[in-house]
Amino acid sequence: MTYLNHYNEEDKVLVAVDCIIFGFDEEGLKILFVKRGFEPEKGKWSLMGGFLKREENLAEAATRVLFSLTGLQDIYMEQLYSYSEIDRDPVTRTISVSYFALINKNKYDLKLNIKNEAQWFKFSEAPLPIFDHQQMIEKALIRLRRKALSTPLGFELLPEKFTMRQLKRLYESILNQKLDKRNFINKFNSLDILVKLEEKDKTSSKKGAFLYKFDEKKYQLKKEEGFNFKL
Amino acid sequence: MTYLNHYNEEDKVLVAVDCIIFGFDEEGLKILFVKRGFEPEKGKWSLMGGFLKREENLAEAATRVLFSLTGLQDIYMEQLYSYSEIDRDPVTRTISVSYFALINKNKYDLKLNIKNEAQWFKFSEAPLPIFDHQQMIEKALIRLRRKALSTPLGFELLPEKFTMRQLKRLYESILNQKLDKRNFINKFNSLDILVKLEEKDKTSSKKGAFLYKFDEKKYQLKKEEGFNFKL
Repeated sequence: MTYLNHYNEEDKVLVAVDCIIFGFDEEGLKILFVKRGFEPEKGKWSLMGGFLKREENLAEAATRVLFSLTGLQDIYMEQLYSYSEIDRDPVTRTISVSYFALINKNKYDLKLNIKNEAQWFKFSEAPLPIFDHQQMIEKALIRLRRKALSTPLGFELLPEKFTMRQLKRLYESILNQKLDKRNFINKFNSLDILVKLEEKDKTSSKKGAFLYKFDEKKYQLKKEEGFNFKL
Repeated sequence: MTYLNHYNEEDKVLVAVDCIIFGFDEEGLKILFVKRGFEPEKGKWSLMGGFLKREENLAEAATRVLFSLTGLQDIYMEQLYSYSEIDRDPVTRTISVSYFALINKNKYDLKLNIKNEAQWFKFSEAPLPIFDHQQMIEKALIRLRRKALSTPLGFELLPEKFTMRQLKRLYESILNQKLDKRNFINKFNSLDILVKLEEKDKTSSKKGAFLYKFDEKKYQLKKEEGFNFKL
């Protein structure tokens, strides 16, 4: 073969995918880990990861890996970044491509398969995962923060009906800072993507708090347009 | 080995990098291609690409490949996306990671090595490159457009001193649309990152046009802050 110098068998490496799954509930931002089922680092907390197979592309691999480890299906994941430090996996050279998704915990928790010991962790209290997974998570968090400040966010993470308090908590836990209530409500209202419902949530006070939902059309439009949300 | 099922020799693939280099001159946005030096598709126009070697990570591979094909050095490239369709390279399964950079043509053209027939093309008239390189370029263009609308841009592409006409042309050629002159100037001035010089450029009219440069400090600050530029 004339191109032997270029296509070199010895340069071949394994390619893996690792999935960063964010969720949200009353405790704040959550991240999904799984107990690694094989050596090295067996039994340690890890992102949902696995190797790319011959018959699939990276997105298909990410979907298969997530399903096989957690039972979660129909999750749209976004490719984030490829990691390639020479010794990032001690067994053999492995390039890993990270994928991330925001999922609605309320909707998917019932489907979460616990046989592989998948577990949600409060983001601020999550254990240190294996290899360079912490680095992957940090990059995903930067992306998530940029999204929160430049496109509406919440549709994928909140229950269908939610209070302003929940929405504010979501932003606070993503941005990791306290937000001024009135300022937040004003800014968010100015986006004109919320629908105030007649209904109230009375679980946290007798008076109750009005419930809201997103106007899906306006939400999607705003998502395409983008904005620069200074909170 | 207990982990044979997971680390599978047969799943190994080649990993390549492909570099998308954008430049700008009086003709508008430019892209750098190189004539591919090996089979398959030898002699066709291609992004600057090559295979990841055992002793380097992806960023190092991108730097080496760009230098060896064009002589360009000290170019900061940003990783963009990984491409993994099974048959994207007809010889063997190859995952390719794209990198992109904006470079100052004026500064680097002298250093451009022509032995590999690297050539700038006007973006709108560039030939169709090999494999899925066109797809890579389109994703890079989307990223470039998003950058142009959410952070200041121009420092990397324009000569040190430039006219408003050049700045507007840069935005027009990136966004591929005509912009209203007064509106553009007002919006750009409101960013407060330009310094108007005493000097005039007299190459295109007798009266001349004032030259500007960027206030580098304010430019960098604005870059970190971001904005939502509706043009």
